[in-house]
Order: sequence, then structure tokens, then C-alpha cells
Amino acid sequence: MPVFLDTREPDFEIDFARLLGAKREDSPDVDDTVAAIIADVRARGDAAVLDLTRRFDRLDLTADRLAFTPAEIAEECARVPAAERAALETAAERIRAYHVRQMPENARWTDPDGATLGWRWTPVAAAGLYVPGGLASYPSSVLMNAIPAKVAGVERLCIAVPTPDGVVNPLVLLAARIAGVDEIYRMGGAQAIAALAYGTETVAPVDKITGPGNAFVAAAKRRVFGKVGIDMIAGPSEILVIADGDNDPEFIALDLLSQAEHDESAQAILLTPDADFGRAVAAEVERLLQVLERRAIAAASWRDFGAIVVTRDLAEAAALSDRVAPEHLELCVADPEALAARIRHAGAIFLGQWTPEAIGDYVGGPNHVLPTARSARFSSGLSVLDFLKRTTLAQMSPAALRAIGPAAEVLARSESLQAHGLSVTARLRKLNG
Amino acid sequence: MPVFLDTREPDFEIDFARLLGAKREDSPDVDDTVAAIIADVRARGDAAVLDLTRRFDRLDLTADRLAFTPAEIAEECARVPAAERAALETAAERIRAYHVRQMPENARWTDPDGATLGWRWTPVAAAGLYVPGGLASYPSSVLMNAIPAKVAGVERLCIAVPTPDGVVNPLVLLAARIAGVDEIYRMGGAQAIAALAYGTETVAPVDKITGPGNAFVAAAKRRVFGKVGIDMIAGPSEILVIADGDNDPEFIALDLLSQAEHDESAQAILLTPDADFGRAVAAEVERLLQVLERRAIAAASWRDFGAIVVTRDLAEAAALSDRVAPEHLELCVADPEALAARIRHAGAIFLGQWTPEAIGDYVGGPNHVLPTARSARFSSGLSVLDFLKRTTLAQMSPAALRAIGPAAEVLARSESLQAHGLSVTARLRKLNG
Repeated sequence: MPVFLDTREPDFEIDFARLLGAKREDSPDVDDTVAAIIADVRARGDAAVLDLTRRFDRLDLTADRLAFTPAEIAEECARVPAAERAALETAAERIRAYHVRQMPENARWTDPDGATLGWRWTPVAAAGLYVPGGLASYPSSVLMNAIPAKVAGVERLCIAVPTPDGVVNPLVLLAARIAGVDEIYRMGGAQAIAALAYGTETVAPVDKITGPGNAFVAAAKRRVFGKVGIDMIAGPSEILVIADGDNDPEFIALDLLSQAEHDESAQAILLTPDADFGRAVAAEVERLLQVLERRAIAAASWRDFGAIVVTRDLAEAAALSDRVAPEHLELCVADPEALAARIRHAGAIFLGQWTPEAIGDYVGGPNHVLPTARSARFSSGLSVLDFLKRTTLAQMSPAALRAIGPAAEVLARSESLQAHGLSVTARLRKLNG
Repeated sequence: MPVFLDTREPDFEIDFARLLGAKREDSPDVDDTVAAIIADVRARGDAAVLDLTRRFDRLDLTADRLAFTPAEIAEECARVPAAERAALETAAERIRAYHVRQMPENARWTDPDGATLGWRWTPVAAAGLYVPGGLASYPSSVLMNAIPAKVAGVERLCIAVPTPDGVVNPLVLLAARIAGVDEIYRMGGAQAIAALAYGTETVAPVDKITGPGNAFVAAAKRRVFGKVGIDMIAGPSEILVIADGDNDPEFIALDLLSQAEHDESAQAILLTPDADFGRAVAAEVERLLQVLERRAIAAASWRDFGAIVVTRDLAEAAALSDRVAPEHLELCVADPEALAARIRHAGAIFLGQWTPEAIGDYVGGPNHVLPTARSARFSSGLSVLDFLKRTTLAQMSPAALRAIGPAAEVLARSESLQAHGLSVTARLRKLNG
């Protein structure tokens, strides 16, 4: 039974704090195993990757078969029915159109002191995208990771995807081809992350690794962070819906369950000022949990982490939402813009009753890789900025150095960094003498 | 003796690879100690912080004395001589003017399908800045971390600074006051990071922690990452200078030594197409190493990690520089703009002979917190973006949902996420029926 809370109840704060603090993830500690795998790949390269692929994926490869050939990719892609192909192309086009707008501007200006300042953005040269194998192998995630990289200008984009027993999802390969991925390797787990980060005889190293994965992949990403860049370590998915009474309870129940069906650790929360509506949604959820294909997963998530909270009004709902800082936030209210203006912490906001969160998972345009576990307080979803870096630029004219150099000399002296100061002093001496 | 290399020598590739791969940092493994300290602070709050402060900083505080009072801050600030005060204010003003320009734009548009899309930037609510105590307690770093946070709109900005034996650098407090820091705590090490991340009775938790620190601080930041955001884990400083023969060898020698004097693990490299100029700089470095105050440190850095590389031309120098991806890059050549256009990986570029790197450390305007250890391949210096996060926005009109909803249904089905699909189907049924 999900928690049915009311902010007017005396114990509300205790219950809500429990909901916020619920430990939803209990990752096994695989760090030692992962460290050994990484060391093995660094030491033995391809041979280690092939051994581990034999062991974990029951697949006997040789180094020249690590990468899919263009012919193999074409063959798999040909299996994809026309409807799926068209849907992937629609999604790709919309995701691309959104992310193109994220491209940041370079800047350059000269200030009143005569200093020319600015910055310049350049793409990461090579990026690797991890794609889980098996059931969690989502073609939509390929698009969401690969398209921002290509829009940013990444020249070499590789995918690592495990193919247990040799099985691959053709939609993953088609999504990769549509997104413009350059290389696709049959490898998974910590060994794939190690190969991407350090390189092997066959796999050239990359500069940045993104994409979801299991506990081994997550631990490996943490370990190679610094050697390469990584995206966030994603936790289980979450949705928070704020809805007034003027909604179809079935819509809202389905939106809640579309997170709950992801994972037993997912979390779905409804905040509503209308207690009757809250009860109607609860009833719809129970009805749907009898019939959904993934009802076992969804029911566990709803039972353990779901909640319906009756609030005094929408303003109170917005304030509670900010304490959750949800990954996905739906605002199913008459004036969603006004309510959005009250929200500060959320990965993505879906406005109005015609914007189910699932639209954002596939075809809305914004990225579906979003901050989980309250990290929307300090981080953002994936974007082109994850595949770009900024170089700052500064050029002093002689006049500028005369104007601001003396302040640098004073501060260098105060920090006991004599050579710093002298590098300015020597130049000022020449300029002034 | 620094390495004096020539790209035309047969062993150049081997020597350069050795230079690139040199392990410059040998951090002690303090992870277990740090884990215990964090657990202690989480369990005992203030009491743990006070115990650890007694132990490590030989300072006996009570909880009500953890924070500096406004009167204490004013008293310390009053000790700062006028020249230092004026220099800090000049620096702050220039850093603020640069970072204000980094503020990103919000966006909102409606696309041809009738989907209204966009994004919105909001500041992190509370940030903590770690400032090392003792000799490495740099007021310039306070400005470089605190000003972007305040420009971004962070409402609550705290500093943690250890005060061993009760001693604090008045310039640090003045820099904090100039930058608009809200709270300053007398605490350091892993216990300070734990207090900022998890909070204690006295210290409210923050959402993001930035700033440099020793091995304990770095390990603690890695551990609390996820609970809060962190900036990069900085390694030892680096400079790479590309200079033609038309430079004053003393300028270039001082620029190289201004990194070398930071740290025995710092690295300074000169690339020049003019072998005679390279030798002249080497001689200047040797001369300066006899007289500089920090000559022991600078000499060790130069001996172990310094290099002068004679290149065929400037283009080859630019290509080598990209392989280093230096934190700081000086282009002391006749046409620095043209050379900068050839560079892809660098934290900060200083153009022309009148722009010593030390200007950038203090008063140039761009941030001096920059990616080290070749991480300029995939990351950027500190900016206002480190204190902002982006929420994506999407609103479907009924027409938009009719146009793109079916593609979402197809993709949800292909990923076996039935509730995702139904959340769209139910709405389309209502719209179409």
C-alpha cells in the first residue's frame, strides 16, 4: 500500500522525511572486482577483454570481431520493421533540433583597461557511450546520449554494448546508425569501461564516457573518472506529479506507473490539493496493477516508495516538490506556467495534462538522461555541454598590463609567490623603461 | 636537469611520451581514515567536528565558536594593509565583470508540431567553499571560487577554513567579505567536507562543494560526491609556453618558474622552434633558480618534470601542446590569434608576450581554477555554470500530442514499457474520441 499522506496531519513531517530519506538503492559492493578487471584490461588489453567477454557474456570472440562491421550493422538494421524505423527517425530529428539550440556561444571583448578577454568552446575529440545489453538495452538511450555528442562536434563516437550469447537488439544498432555513431564494440561491464578509458590494441581510448549501466559499470566509471570525463552516476528513476482535481485519474495513474514499471526501486509521488482526486488516482493505480505486463515490478515500486500527498494548495505542493528535487516533474494544473515559476529544483518539467512524461522519454526533444536521487539540487540533465569544454582567453595590451599588473604584483607578494610577481615586474620594467 | 628535447631526434617520441606519462602525484591512500571521519561527523555532528579540530588543528572550540562572528571578521579585515585591500578589490571587480558575461540564457520556443520547449537555469541554493589553511591559504582562490557562485545567484555561500593553532590569514577573510560570502567556519580536512555535505547542529548542509585541498579533502570530496555536487579534483599545476625567438628569455623563464614554484609536482614546458632561444631560456632558469625565494621547490619541479622542446615550427608546437592539453598555455609569438586557432585542448590561453600567466592567477578576469593532468581534453575551468543547473521544459498541445504521440507509443512498445505507451494512448483516445 502506498503512503497516503495529508500535510495537515500532525505526523506529516515525519512521514515525508521518511519518504525523502528512503534508501532506494542497495548497490552491491563490487569495487574490488572492478579494480581487478580494470587492472587486467590495462595490463593485457584485448586479451583481457576477450577473456572477460567469454566469461560474462558466454561469447567467444577474436580481437578482429570485437567491433561490428558495417555489413553486420546493416544486416541487423534491416530486421527493424518500418514503424520502429520511422519512430526512431522522428525521435532523432526532434532530439537533434532541441540540442542544436543548446550550442553555446564563443565570446571575445576588450575591456576599458585594454585587456582582450573571452572564451571558446571546443568539442571533446572522442567519446564512448555505454549501452546495457539484454532487457535494459534501450534504443532511446542511444539517441539521447549519441545525438548531443554529435551535435557538439565529437568526431569519434563509440558504443560499447554487451551481446550476451551473441544476441544484440537491432534497434540499438539502428539508433546508433541514425545518430551517427562511428564504432560499435561487442563488450560490456567494467571491462568495456576500462577499454574505452585506457584503450587496447583494437579500441582507441576516448576522452569521455557516458551512458547507464549496472553496478559494475557504475563502479568502473567512478574509478576511471579523472583519466576520462564521465556523466553522472544515475540512480533509479523518479516522477513527481502535481495535479489539481480537474484531471483524468487514469492519465495520472499511468504517468505514475510509467516510472514504477522501470524498476522496483523507482519512485512515483502524486501531490494534489484534492483529496478525492488523490483517492481516485490511488484506485486507478490499483486497477492498473492488476493488468499491466510489468505489474510485479510496478507494484513493488509503488508499494515500497510510492506516495499520494494531499496538500493545502498548489503553492504548498510546489514547496514540497522542491524538497524532493525530482528527476521528472509533471504539472497537470490549469496554469502550469504559473506553477513552474514556483519550482526551483527539477531535472525536467512537463507542463499540462497533454504532456505525459513518456513523451519526454522518447520524442519530446529534451534529454531523458536526468539527475536522480535529489541531485537536481546541483546538477542538470545531459546536454551538448557534456561533450564540450571551454578554454578561457586573455590578452593584455601594454596599457592593460600597466593598469592591472601592479595589483597582481601585490597579490603575488601577499601569497609569497615571488616568481609570479617577478613575471609581471620584469615586463613592467621593460614597458616603463 | 630539465629535459632538452628536439622533435627531429630519433628518440623524441619515446622521450615525449615519458614526459606526458610522468606520474607527478603520489597521493597517500587516506580513504579509510576519511571514511571513518565522515561516518563520525554524520553520527556525532558538531561534537565530532570539534574533537577532530582539537586533534588536527590543536584548537579547542565550542560549537558556538565554529563560525567567525561579524566582529571577528571585521577585526581581522582591519589588519589588511591598504595596498592589499585595493589589489583584492581590483581583482574582485575584474573577476566579477568576466563571470557576469558567462550567465547563460533561458530559452522557450514553439516548434512546428505545436510543442513548446525550452529550458531554465536556476542557481544552486547553498554552496560550500573549502579554503586550505596555512601557507596554501590563497585569498585569490577565495575570490575565484566565491565570485562565480555569487554571480550565479547562490544565496548561501559558506567557507570552511582550518585555523591551525587559531591562526587565520586576514586576507582570506577580507577576500571572503569582498566576494559576499555568508558564513565562515573554523574547520578543515575531511571533517569540514563531511559537515558541509551532511550538516551538523551548527552547520546547515550545502548542495555543492568546491575548492582545493590536501589528500584528505580530495578523498572526502570524492566520497560525498552524489550527496552533493563537487568541482574537479585538482592535481598539481602546469604551464606550457609556446614562444618564438623574438621574446625576452627572462620573461619566459619567470613564467615557467611561476608554475614550478607552486609545488615540486608542478610541470613547466617550453616549446620553441628556436633552439638558441630555448638554450637562452634554460640559462635564465638556472640563473633564477639561484636567487628565487622558493628555489628549492621550483628547482625540484624543473629538474623532475620541466622540459624545453625544440620544434620544427609553430604548427608542430601546437600539435604537441594538444597532446599535453595543458592547464595554462602561453602563446608568446608574433601572431598569437593564428596560433590559438590551431589549439584545441587547453584550460586557459594567454596570448602574446604581455600576458604572463600570473595575470590570470589574480586579476585577468577568467577563473584560475582550471583542469589539470590532461583533463582539459574533456573539462573546463570553474565558471558560473558550476553553480547553476538547468531544468528542461516541455508542453504538448493536443495537436502536438497527436503529431508525435504515436512515435512514442511505438518506441515504448519496442522497449516493453507498456505503461509508458498507455500514458500516451489514453490521452490520444480522449483527444480523438
